[in-house]
Amino acid sequence: MDPDSYVVKLNGNGHKTVKDIVYPTKQKSRRQRWNIRASKMSINTLNPIRSIVDGMKLTPNPEKPMIALSIGDPTVFGNLPTDDKVLQAMKDAIDSHKYNGYAPSVGYQKSREVLANFYSCPEAPLEAEDVLLTSGCSQAIDLAITVLCNPGDNILIPCPGFSLYKTLAVSLGIQVKLYNLLPEKSWEIDLQHLESLIDDRTACLIVNNPSNPCGSVYSKEHLQDILSVASKRCLPILADEIYGDMVFPGCKYQSIASLSSDVPVLACGGLAKRWLVPGWRLGWILIHDRNQIFGKEIRQGLVKLSQRILGACTIVQGALESILNDTPQDFYQRTIRFLKSNSEICFSELSTIPGLTPVMPSGAMYLMVGIEMEHFPEFLDDVQFTEHLVTEQSVFCLPATAFEYPNYFRIVVTVPEEMMVVACGRIREFCQRHYRPRSQDSAELDQ
Amino acid sequence: MDPDSYVVKLNGNGHKTVKDIVYPTKQKSRRQRWNIRASKMSINTLNPIRSIVDGMKLTPNPEKPMIALSIGDPTVFGNLPTDDKVLQAMKDAIDSHKYNGYAPSVGYQKSREVLANFYSCPEAPLEAEDVLLTSGCSQAIDLAITVLCNPGDNILIPCPGFSLYKTLAVSLGIQVKLYNLLPEKSWEIDLQHLESLIDDRTACLIVNNPSNPCGSVYSKEHLQDILSVASKRCLPILADEIYGDMVFPGCKYQSIASLSSDVPVLACGGLAKRWLVPGWRLGWILIHDRNQIFGKEIRQGLVKLSQRILGACTIVQGALESILNDTPQDFYQRTIRFLKSNSEICFSELSTIPGLTPVMPSGAMYLMVGIEMEHFPEFLDDVQFTEHLVTEQSVFCLPATAFEYPNYFRIVVTVPEEMMVVACGRIREFCQRHYRPRSQDSAELDQ
Repeated sequence: MDPDSYVVKLNGNGHKTVKDIVYPTKQKSRRQRWNIRASKMSINTLNPIRSIVDGMKLTPNPEKPMIALSIGDPTVFGNLPTDDKVLQAMKDAIDSHKYNGYAPSVGYQKSREVLANFYSCPEAPLEAEDVLLTSGCSQAIDLAITVLCNPGDNILIPCPGFSLYKTLAVSLGIQVKLYNLLPEKSWEIDLQHLESLIDDRTACLIVNNPSNPCGSVYSKEHLQDILSVASKRCLPILADEIYGDMVFPGCKYQSIASLSSDVPVLACGGLAKRWLVPGWRLGWILIHDRNQIFGKEIRQGLVKLSQRILGACTIVQGALESILNDTPQDFYQRTIRFLKSNSEICFSELSTIPGLTPVMPSGAMYLMVGIEMEHFPEFLDDVQFTEHLVTEQSVFCLPATAFEYPNYFRIVVTVPEEMMVVACGRIREFCQRHYRPRSQDSAELDQ
Repeated sequence: MDPDSYVVKLNGNGHKTVKDIVYPTKQKSRRQRWNIRASKMSINTLNPIRSIVDGMKLTPNPEKPMIALSIGDPTVFGNLPTDDKVLQAMKDAIDSHKYNGYAPSVGYQKSREVLANFYSCPEAPLEAEDVLLTSGCSQAIDLAITVLCNPGDNILIPCPGFSLYKTLAVSLGIQVKLYNLLPEKSWEIDLQHLESLIDDRTACLIVNNPSNPCGSVYSKEHLQDILSVASKRCLPILADEIYGDMVFPGCKYQSIASLSSDVPVLACGGLAKRWLVPGWRLGWILIHDRNQIFGKEIRQGLVKLSQRILGACTIVQGALESILNDTPQDFYQRTIRFLKSNSEICFSELSTIPGLTPVMPSGAMYLMVGIEMEHFPEFLDDVQFTEHLVTEQSVFCLPATAFEYPNYFRIVVTVPEEMMVVACGRIREFCQRHYRPRSQDSAELDQ
């Protein structure tokens, strides 16, 4: 008899005292020295932004103050504070003394109701039961991937795309396949490429709209085309809509779920960006499943996974009703006006610089800039280009290799306007210094 | 050539337009109907408390108001509010406007420093680098298990013990082995049994002190004995010390790490219990590794895992310095005096009830009660016993089957005193009604 099974059996039954039993000791065990290794999962948790940035020599020019256009946190410069109503809602939640205990793992019923009402629309109605609160949008994405995928499955993610999808998936043993976005079509999805990637182990399609790092906002027609592929190939969608509603005037944001009557969608969002409080870690999953395709199984799976570590801070949950209902419209509009104006300044400056091809965004808080590398022969790639931009001009932009998209860089447009203007001037100076017109020879070599 | 590798390769390089390429379509794919299943991980995320309680027929006696002695949340009855200083610290953090952006994934440097100072002692010194902030103690335990264990490894957990250890481990494909606690020795660990369970795949030992559900607090000597086993068998310790310092007068709490110079310890804690704000989700891991046995690898592993979803709400992180340094000593003492007094009331009441064997706790907020099932022949087990206690007396105690420990039940001692007195009276009435002295016959049959 295996001594282990003997021991385990004992636990189930009577609670014998130590004197009753002599436990067999394992003679074969080789545990005679310390040998603690980090788990495979921790080793496989890779942060491409960190590893690329940590590998760069970032030594600013001491004669120019550093300008970081790299940080995807709208709060760092103090020019985009959240609304006073949002802060007051938090203080009211504290003073109520009602939000100190445990909430249900999926969030307070009332907070779920409030979110359901806020995001419900006739085409995509939501009830409290369709909402889970999470510790930030990151946990929402983590739960959504984890419930839909097994190790060995694959997910389709945008290229360029937010690095967290790959970080989460790979750490769970899930493969990623990158589908191309098309800069010349305002970063629409290359649908033929997308479809060619789908196989029997494809467990979900991640659509990020509005997009980080592109700042693109998809038209209704494009979203419908994406849904057609998902519908035809029976593929559920994980919609990362953390920048939902952050679109410039003249452009319309539509949640992908509101355009489908069959494709099941887990839509992930949060307070981070629109309410300008990313540190508060309040995110959510909205379950859209009008044809009962997810059914009870996925809903129950999400509830079970939510019980592993519980979710968002109860004070923020308690403040949610007032945050959603009392924040003045002008607050949202002011943010968007600023982002648009700063994007326009940046775009119009950079589009007149030989060798750069900026792509004008329609929302979110980013702008992607292509580098015509053939005109900058001194630099191997976007990483070297942005590294030298720091050395000479003290301007840091994230090389898009961090988004699996070499030879571009990303600019965060939340910095104060005067800083943006100075930064663009310095980028111009840098490019003018290093730009080399293509020689006749090299052009011939290419043919 | 595999069309996949062709497609994937394209992503790495140039960004061709859709017209350049015709992507091969998979002909073999069988994706012609919807078939979305919840992942194995979500299916394997089991919550024993939920599944036991959901399976019980809990119909209170309509003539008696319900008293729940089952809820491990000290805030539910309003008799144990947190301190005003704690609430003021939160409001100050909000008013400062400094804590709305992203914190580093391991927490603000300042908050880590403050925690290191708070828990540092000469025998177990801590620096900011030894501290990670997490989304509650649950995430701390999750990260600690995840960094130390691979699927197929096993961990040693106490029996009876807090159910989350098993929930987290099993969901990650890690086995659990239950080591016995000895009620007759105030729930000390049966060390011989513990040692017999260790094998080559044992990745860590979880020690929960003070204990949920036992309320036990280990002596220095017992902790040293546990450390001896860990040291001899080269086994790292995950110390769940969420009830640290919540011990009754006359008893001393020592962190296990303070007693060891070699065994590496990940000590998990949080604000939840001592500061009476479990909903705020601020937890931590303290890394004790004086012999560099964890080394860089485990530290880096923890940092990497922390980047998956980020951690605690920044407002609570910002308030932490004041919460730790400004909360008056009297607040802690008042809580402990109350827990001790209520435990004594409960213990002295229940210990005079024939058929019950309560075990007096020394800390935390729980008390375990043995049921001499042979004297209650109407009931099959602790689940039936506690179910009928609800039906007849409207008192709900959690059956200890939820902690893998049948024939006991757990009482939470945070309820108001008058409620505790009434509840104990009703338990007495229930036991008196169902108690059957052992007959001569059945005693003979046993021999």
